[in-house]
Amino acid sequence: MTNTSKKSGSGTPPPATSGIWGGRFASGPAAIMQEINASIDFDRRLYAHDIAASKAHAAMLAKTGIISQDDGDAIAKGLDAVVKEIECGDFEFKQELEDIHMNVESRLGELIGDAAGRLHTARSRNDQVATDFKLWVRDALGQLDEDLKTLQSILIDRAGEHAATMMPGFTHLQSAQPVTLGHHLLAYVEMLGRDRGRASDCRKRLNESPLGAAALAGTSFPIDRHMTAGALGFDAPMANSLDAVSDRDFVLEYLSNAAILGIHLSRLAEEIVLWCSVQFAYAHMPDAYSTGSSIMPQKRNPDAAELVRAKAGVIIGALNTVLVMMKGLPLAYGKDMQEDKVPVFAVADTLALSLAAMSGMVEGMTFDVERMKADAGSGHATATDLADWLVKTLDMPFRDAHHVTGALVKLADEKTMGLHQLSLDDMQSVAPGITKEVYDVLKVEDALNSRNSFGGTAPTSVEGAVAEARKRFLDG
Amino acid sequence: MTNTSKKSGSGTPPPATSGIWGGRFASGPAAIMQEINASIDFDRRLYAHDIAASKAHAAMLAKTGIISQDDGDAIAKGLDAVVKEIECGDFEFKQELEDIHMNVESRLGELIGDAAGRLHTARSRNDQVATDFKLWVRDALGQLDEDLKTLQSILIDRAGEHAATMMPGFTHLQSAQPVTLGHHLLAYVEMLGRDRGRASDCRKRLNESPLGAAALAGTSFPIDRHMTAGALGFDAPMANSLDAVSDRDFVLEYLSNAAILGIHLSRLAEEIVLWCSVQFAYAHMPDAYSTGSSIMPQKRNPDAAELVRAKAGVIIGALNTVLVMMKGLPLAYGKDMQEDKVPVFAVADTLALSLAAMSGMVEGMTFDVERMKADAGSGHATATDLADWLVKTLDMPFRDAHHVTGALVKLADEKTMGLHQLSLDDMQSVAPGITKEVYDVLKVEDALNSRNSFGGTAPTSVEGAVAEARKRFLDG
Amino acid sequence: MTNTSKKSGSGTPPPATSGIWGGRFASGPAAIMQEINASIDFDRRLYAHDIAASKAHAAMLAKTGIISQDDGDAIAKGLDAVVKEIECGDFEFKQELEDIHMNVESRLGELIGDAAGRLHTARSRNDQVATDFKLWVRDALGQLDEDLKTLQSILIDRAGEHAATMMPGFTHLQSAQPVTLGHHLLAYVEMLGRDRGRASDCRKRLNESPLGAAALAGTSFPIDRHMTAGALGFDAPMANSLDAVSDRDFVLEYLSNAAILGIHLSRLAEEIVLWCSVQFAYAHMPDAYSTGSSIMPQKRNPDAAELVRAKAGVIIGALNTVLVMMKGLPLAYGKDMQEDKVPVFAVADTLALSLAAMSGMVEGMTFDVERMKADAGSGHATATDLADWLVKTLDMPFRDAHHVTGALVKLADEKTMGLHQLSLDDMQSVAPGITKEVYDVLKVEDALNSRNSFGGTAPTSVEGAVAEARKRFLDG
Amino acid sequence: MTNTSKKSGSGTPPPATSGIWGGRFASGPAAIMQEINASIDFDRRLYAHDIAASKAHAAMLAKTGIISQDDGDAIAKGLDAVVKEIECGDFEFKQELEDIHMNVESRLGELIGDAAGRLHTARSRNDQVATDFKLWVRDALGQLDEDLKTLQSILIDRAGEHAATMMPGFTHLQSAQPVTLGHHLLAYVEMLGRDRGRASDCRKRLNESPLGAAALAGTSFPIDRHMTAGALGFDAPMANSLDAVSDRDFVLEYLSNAAILGIHLSRLAEEIVLWCSVQFAYAHMPDAYSTGSSIMPQKRNPDAAELVRAKAGVIIGALNTVLVMMKGLPLAYGKDMQEDKVPVFAVADTLALSLAAMSGMVEGMTFDVERMKADAGSGHATATDLADWLVKTLDMPFRDAHHVTGALVKLADEKTMGLHQLSLDDMQSVAPGITKEVYDVLKVEDALNSRNSFGGTAPTSVEGAVAEARKRFLDG
Repeated sequence: MTNTSKKSGSGTPPPATSGIWGGRFASGPAAIMQEINASIDFDRRLYAHDIAASKAHAAMLAKTGIISQDDGDAIAKGLDAVVKEIECGDFEFKQELEDIHMNVESRLGELIGDAAGRLHTARSRNDQVATDFKLWVRDALGQLDEDLKTLQSILIDRAGEHAATMMPGFTHLQSAQPVTLGHHLLAYVEMLGRDRGRASDCRKRLNESPLGAAALAGTSFPIDRHMTAGALGFDAPMANSLDAVSDRDFVLEYLSNAAILGIHLSRLAEEIVLWCSVQFAYAHMPDAYSTGSSIMPQKRNPDAAELVRAKAGVIIGALNTVLVMMKGLPLAYGKDMQEDKVPVFAVADTLALSLAAMSGMVEGMTFDVERMKADAGSGHATATDLADWLVKTLDMPFRDAHHVTGALVKLADEKTMGLHQLSLDDMQSVAPGITKEVYDVLKVEDALNSRNSFGGTAPTSVEGAVAEARKRFLDG
Repeated sequence: MTNTSKKSGSGTPPPATSGIWGGRFASGPAAIMQEINASIDFDRRLYAHDIAASKAHAAMLAKTGIISQDDGDAIAKGLDAVVKEIECGDFEFKQELEDIHMNVESRLGELIGDAAGRLHTARSRNDQVATDFKLWVRDALGQLDEDLKTLQSILIDRAGEHAATMMPGFTHLQSAQPVTLGHHLLAYVEMLGRDRGRASDCRKRLNESPLGAAALAGTSFPIDRHMTAGALGFDAPMANSLDAVSDRDFVLEYLSNAAILGIHLSRLAEEIVLWCSVQFAYAHMPDAYSTGSSIMPQKRNPDAAELVRAKAGVIIGALNTVLVMMKGLPLAYGKDMQEDKVPVFAVADTLALSLAAMSGMVEGMTFDVERMKADAGSGHATATDLADWLVKTLDMPFRDAHHVTGALVKLADEKTMGLHQLSLDDMQSVAPGITKEVYDVLKVEDALNSRNSFGGTAPTSVEGAVAEARKRFLDG
Repeated sequence: MTNTSKKSGSGTPPPATSGIWGGRFASGPAAIMQEINASIDFDRRLYAHDIAASKAHAAMLAKTGIISQDDGDAIAKGLDAVVKEIECGDFEFKQELEDIHMNVESRLGELIGDAAGRLHTARSRNDQVATDFKLWVRDALGQLDEDLKTLQSILIDRAGEHAATMMPGFTHLQSAQPVTLGHHLLAYVEMLGRDRGRASDCRKRLNESPLGAAALAGTSFPIDRHMTAGALGFDAPMANSLDAVSDRDFVLEYLSNAAILGIHLSRLAEEIVLWCSVQFAYAHMPDAYSTGSSIMPQKRNPDAAELVRAKAGVIIGALNTVLVMMKGLPLAYGKDMQEDKVPVFAVADTLALSLAAMSGMVEGMTFDVERMKADAGSGHATATDLADWLVKTLDMPFRDAHHVTGALVKLADEKTMGLHQLSLDDMQSVAPGITKEVYDVLKVEDALNSRNSFGGTAPTSVEGAVAEARKRFLDG
Repeated sequence: MTNTSKKSGSGTPPPATSGIWGGRFASGPAAIMQEINASIDFDRRLYAHDIAASKAHAAMLAKTGIISQDDGDAIAKGLDAVVKEIECGDFEFKQELEDIHMNVESRLGELIGDAAGRLHTARSRNDQVATDFKLWVRDALGQLDEDLKTLQSILIDRAGEHAATMMPGFTHLQSAQPVTLGHHLLAYVEMLGRDRGRASDCRKRLNESPLGAAALAGTSFPIDRHMTAGALGFDAPMANSLDAVSDRDFVLEYLSNAAILGIHLSRLAEEIVLWCSVQFAYAHMPDAYSTGSSIMPQKRNPDAAELVRAKAGVIIGALNTVLVMMKGLPLAYGKDMQEDKVPVFAVADTLALSLAAMSGMVEGMTFDVERMKADAGSGHATATDLADWLVKTLDMPFRDAHHVTGALVKLADEKTMGLHQLSLDDMQSVAPGITKEVYDVLKVEDALNSRNSFGGTAPTSVEGAVAEARKRFLDG
C-alpha cells in the first residue's frame, strides 16, 4: 500500500534512469528538473493577463518603430486567437514549455510564424511575470471589494432588521451589558470596511508597471514604458528596474490584508458556531448550510462556519510561506519567487468561497429573539447602570459606586435573585441613599435605550448607524 | 543545576502553598494568577499615552458637566504630577494593581483624594487600553517614518556618489547584466518608500478614537466623544462601540507592515554579508560595525548585518503571534488581547535598532570599485547587448538573435575567452552578417550607458533618479 | 509625547555623535553596535550551564595535560566563586563584554589572574554557546516533564472523581452523544502524555555534546571530547564539528513540541471559557482564578483561561521566529543564531506559567453536575443508540437504520419532544418492527453504560482508564 | 479581463440563484455549500488507506458476529473491486458524495447491494478519517525515510570522494579555518540523520489506532479494536475515544519535522547557489539542473537549488496553517480539521520533489578543487593555528596568544601578504620567542591535518567519519 501521487497516470513512459531515483521520479534528472522547475500547472491562471500585457508591449514596439506595424498587427491578431483557444479549452498546455509565457509565445509562433519571435524584444520573463501577476492581483482586489461589499450589504440589512433585538453583550464570553443584535452585526460591517480600505490602499500602491524593466537593468531599445503602463491601467512605470523585477511587496500586502480579513471571518464564524449550539440556541442555520452525521442521525452541524474559521489558518499559512520565501533574497530576480503564485491563488479562492459562504449563512440564519432577550438580562447585566445611577443621582465617585454595586450583586447572588428583584430595603441596607427610581435603570430595555452616546447600542443609535453604514459603504 | 527564572530575587517570601505548585510558583494560586494576569511589567510603556487620554477624558467630563470643573482641574493637575513622578523614576509600579491604568489611578487617588474616583466615570479599561495603545502605535509609526527617511537619505547619498560605479547586476546570484551601484542602492529606496506609504496608510486608518465606547456598549452619560477624539488628535470617534473595544486591526496592520519592511532589511543585510565575503570583496565594513572572534584572531565578522537579517524572524514571529491570538475570538473584549503588547513593543524596538544599524552600515561601508568593475564584465554580461544588436542591426527576430548569441557564448566558452575577445571571423562563422561595429556594444561601459530607458541603469538615468528620489522622499 | 524606550536611563553619557542618529541612538555607531550585538541582557540566564561546561572543559584540559593541574584547579575554584557571586546578586554584568561567556571569563581573570587566560584553549564561543544552550534546554525539558506530570495528575484525579458524571459529548459543538466528564478530562491526559513523549525524544536526540568542535573544524590540541561529554551528562560527543556549531535542531524541536502542547492547552482553555459562560454554566472558577471588571461590578471573568489560550500564539510565534531565522543560513555558525535564545526563554516561561495556571484552574474548578446531566440528553443525544438498536434487534443494515432514525428525529422535532417521548405507535408508523424494548436504549444512562468498547465512555471503562492512566503516566 | 477560476468548465448548468451570488457562485447556496464542504477533490488520495481500513473493519465485524460472514466476504470482495476501479481510472469521483468515504461506500452499494449498508456499523467518519489519514502519514514517513537515506547515501559518497579536498570553512560567511569538502558534506548527513530519527519517533507515536472510537464515545457493539489495530499494523488501539477522533498531533508532528528538514535543505540550497556564483565558483551544476534565460543567452541558473530553498517557506507555511487551524478547538471532532489534508499532501509532495532534486544536484555537481584549495588559505585562515602554536610551544595563555596573533595579522595586512609570508624578524618583532618551526603550522595542509580531534576536519578523521556514517545510516 503506497501513497498515490497527485499525478497518477501522467502519461508517456520515462526515459532510462540513473538508478538512484526511486519509484516516484523514475525518469531521472530531466523529469525531476522539469517537475520542480515548470510552473505551467499553476501559472496558466495568468493567461489573460499575460496576453493583455503582451498586446500592450507589442503595440508599443510597433508605435516606437522597434518592430514593424505589420508585425505588431500580426502579433495582436495572433494573441487574440490564443486567448480564444484557451477559453474554449482548445489549448494544449505543455510542461516542457515551462510557463504560461513560453506556452503562449510558442503557440503564437505556430499561428503567425516569424513575427512571433519579435514579441520578446526589449523585455524579459522577469518583468513579464511581475506585470502579469500584478494585473492578476489587481483584479483579485477588485473582486474582493465586491465580495466584501456583498457581505456588508447583507450584514447591514440584517442589522436594520434587528436594530432593537436585545441580546447579551459579551466580554470574556461573560454577559456584560445588554446590546442589540443589530449593533453586534454592525461591528463586523466596520471590520469589513477597514478590509476594503486596506484593499484599496494595496491596489493604489501596486499600480505601477514593471514592464520594460527587462531582465533587471532596463534596455537599450527606445521603448516607451509610460505607453504600456497606460494601456494596462497602471498609474506610472516603476521607477527602478532592479526593484521592478525583484519586488513582491504587492503579494505580501495582499496576503497580509487577507490574513486580517481571515481573522474577522474567523471571529464571526466562531460566534455562529456558538450561537448554533444548544446551549446558546440564539441562531438556526438553514438546511442549505448545515450537514448531517454519518453515524448520528439527529445532527445538524454548522460545517460551513467551522470551515470558514479553519480557513484563517490557510490564509495565515500562505502569508507565512511567502514571507519565509522572500527572507534574505539578494537582488534582483531569484527563482525562489516563482513560489509566490500558488499561495496567492489559494488565498483568492479561499476568500471568494469563505465570503460567499458567510454571506449565505448571515442571510439565511434565523434568530431566536425571545431566547436572546431572556439572556440579555442574565448575569446582572444592568449592574453598570446601577453604578452609573449612583454616580448621577447620589453624586458618588464612580469608584465608590462600583464598590456599592458589587456589594448589591453579592447580596442578590446570595438570595439567588436578579438585581432588579432586590427590595428597596435590601438596597438601602447597602447604600441608604438609594430610592425607588433606581428600578428604572435595572430593566434591560431602559439600560439599552440609555446607551445613546455616539457609537452606542441604543436602538435609536443603531438605526442611525444602519443608515450611516449604508451611506458609507454601499452607496456610490 | 536548574534554569534561572527571569525574575530571580523577586522579593518577599511567598504565602503558604497548596503543595502542587513546584518550585517556580511556590506561592500558590494567588501568585500564579497575579503573574499571568498582571500586565504592568510591560504596559507601563503606555504611561504617557494613558495619562494623556485620561486628561482628555477628564476635561470632557468637566466640560459636559458629568463631573465638576474643580474635580476636573484636580484630576488634570494630579495626572501631571504622576507623569512627572514616572519620568523621574520616583513612581513605584505595583504588580498587584495589575496594569498601568490602575497604577496611575491608584496613585492619583493618593495625590488628590476622592476626585480621583470620578475619573473612571463613563469609561472602562476596555476602551481605555484601546485608546492608549492606538496612541502608542501612532507615535511608533511617526518614529518609524523618521527612521525610514534617515535610511533613505543615506542610501540616496551613497547612490549619488556611486551613480556611475559599475557592478554586476545579478539574477539567481549569477552575473546577468552590468548595473551601477547607485542603481542597486536606489532599489532599496523604492522599497522603503513603499514601507513609508504603508505606515502612512496604517496611521490614517487607525486614527479613530475608541474612547467613550466604555466596556462595549457605550454609556448613558452624556459624553462628547468628538471632543476627546479631537483633543487626542484622532480624526473621529469609532462608529461602533463593540468594534471599538474588540478591534486590533491596527496592531495587525502595524505588524504586517513591519514584516514586509523586515523582509527588505533582510535582503539588504544578505547582500552586505555577501559583499563583505572574501569571495565577493565588494565592500568593507568599518570597524564600528565589525566584530572579532574569540578563537580566530584574524576574523572581521559582519555581525550587525547578520543580526538585522535574523530580526526578520523576530518580526514575522510577532505578527504570527498576534494573528494566532486573535483567531476565533468572539466579540467583544477578551483577555487574550492583552497579549498584543509585548509583540508590538518588541517589534518597535527591533525596527528602531535594525534601521539604526543599517543606516550606520550603509553610511560607513566602503566599496572596492575596481573589484566590482572587473566583475561587471564577467560571465558574458553583455550577451544581451549582442542579441539586441543583432535585432537592431540585422533585423533578426529576438528569438533568433537569442539563439545566435547562445552559440557565440558557447564558442567563447570553448575558447575560454570573453565574447568581446572573439575574432570577427569567429563571429561570422556563426552569423555571417555580423560586422565589426558589434564590438561597440560588448564593452561594459557602452552596455551600461545604453540602458537609458525609464528606470534603467545608465549612469545618466541613475543621476536623474537620485535627484528625483530626493524630491519624492526627502524634501518637504 | 514620545514612546518610552525599554531602557530609559541606561546610564553613561554617550560619545560624540555623527548627526544622523536620532534621539534614540544618540551615541552613535559604537552604541548601536553594542546594543544590537550584545546578548548579555538575555544570555545571562545561561550562567550556570556556561560555568558547568567551563569546569568540565578545564578539568579535561588538565587531565590531558593541555594545561597544568594547578591552572585547572585555580580555574575550577574561580568558577565556583563566580557562580556564587551571580547567585548572590553580587555580579556586575557588563554589556561591553557582550555575552555571558566573556562576562564570566573576564571576572575569572580578575579573581585568579593569568590562569584564566588558559581556559579558552581548544574551544570557541561557537561550541561553548551550543553546549550551554543545549544544557539549558535539557533542563527546561526536565522541568517541562514535571509540570506536565503535575497537570496530568490533577486531571486524572478529577477524572476519577467524575468517572460517571454525565455530560454531552460534542462534535461541531453540537450535542452528539452522552459522555462522562471523566472521559473528557482523560482525553487531555492522553494529549499531555504524547507531549511528554515528544519531550523525552527531544531530550534523547539533543543529548550529544558540541564541546570540542571549537570554532567549526575541531582542534589540534589533544582534547578528550568523550570526557567532557560524560562529565556534562551527554551520551556522546557530536560526530561532526561543523554540524556541532551550526545545529539548532534542538531549539526547533523544543519549540515545535511546545507549539503542539500550546495547542492542547488552548483547546482546554477554550472549553473552560465555554463552560464558565452563563449559557453553558457547567463549571465555576474559584475566586483565585477569576477577575472582575473596572466598570461592570458583577463580572467574574475567566481571564487565566483566556490568557493560556492566547499564549498558544506566543509559542507558535516563537517557533516561527526561529524557523525564519534559520532559513537559508550557510554553514557554519552565523550571528543570526544569537536570536535563538529570547524565543526559547519566552516559551519556557510561558509554558511554566500556563501549566501552573491550568493546573490551578483544573484543580479548583467546580462542576454543575446537574446541569451537565440535563444537557447530556438534549439534542436527541441517544439517536445513535436507536439506530444501533435497529441494527442489532431488527438486523437492519446500518445505513437503513440511520435513515429510519433520521425520520424519527424529524417526527420528534415536529412534536417538540424528545425521542424517548415518542409513543410506540409513532415509532411503528416509521418502522413497524420496533418494540417497546427500544425505550431501554433511549435513556442517557443506558446509552452511556452501553459504550463499553475499549476506550469508550461507559463509566466502568472510564474507571479502568483512570487506573490505567495513573499506572502509565504517574507511577515510577 | 477577470481572473480565471481554478475550475473553469465544471459542467452542469447551475440552478436558479438568489441574486446575491456574484459570478463565481452563480448556483446559489447549495453550490457554495457543496464547494466549501466537499473534500473529495483532495481526500481521494486516501482511497487505498480508506479501503484497507474498511476491509479490516468488515473482517472484525464478521469475526465478532456483528455482521454475517457472508456479508463480510461480500464487502471484502466489493472493496477489492473498488480499489481496482480506482487504480484503473474507471472510478467516477462525485463531489455530491462529499468525501472518499462516501464515494467508496456508495460504489460498494452499487456493486454488492444491501450488505454495503452494514459496513458502517459501529464506526463513524470521525474515526474512519483519523484512521485513514494516520495510515497515509505513516506511509509518507516510510517514503520520507527512504528519500532521506538516498540523499544521505549520495552525500556520503561525495564526502568519501572529497575527504581530503581542501576548502575554506566559514563562519559569518568569512573564511575561518580550512576544512575539507567531505567534512562539510558530512555535516548534512548528520542533520538528515536527525531528521530520520524524528520521522521514526513520529511514526512510533502515531502508531495507535483510532478505529472503533466511532463518533466520539465508543460504541455499544461488541467490537474488537485490538483486532483491527493489529490488521492495520498499529501497535494498539488509542486509549480514549474522544482523543482518538479529535487528535491531530500526528499531523502537527509530521509537519514540524518536515519544517526542520526544510530548514536543512534550504541551508544546503543556499550554499549551492553561493558555490555556483562566479564569485565563489566552487561548483558547477550539470546541464540537467541548470536553466537559461529568456533574454540573457549566457545564463546558467541554479533554479532547482533556489526552488528547494523557497520550498522551506511552503513547508513552514503548511505547519503554520494547521497550528492556526487547531488553535482553540473544543473537543471532539470539528469540521475545521478537514483542512488538515491539503497542507500534508502539499508537504509530502514538496519533500519528495525537493529531496529528489537535491539528490540529483549533489550527485551531479562537479567541484573546482583548485579554486577551493586556493581559497582555503585566504583570509589568514591559519591564524588560529599560529595562536595554538604559541600556546603549545611558548606556553602562552590562549588569551595572550590570541592577542599576539591579532597583532601579526594586522602586520601582515599592512604588508598585504599572508601570515606565512611574514619574515621571522617580523614575527619576532611582535613575539620574540617565535622560532622558524612556526611556519609548519601556517600551511593549510598542516593546519588541516592537525585537526584530528574527534569530529574534526583532518582528512584521516573525515575518512573515518565516512565509514562510520555508512555504518550508522546506510547499512541494515
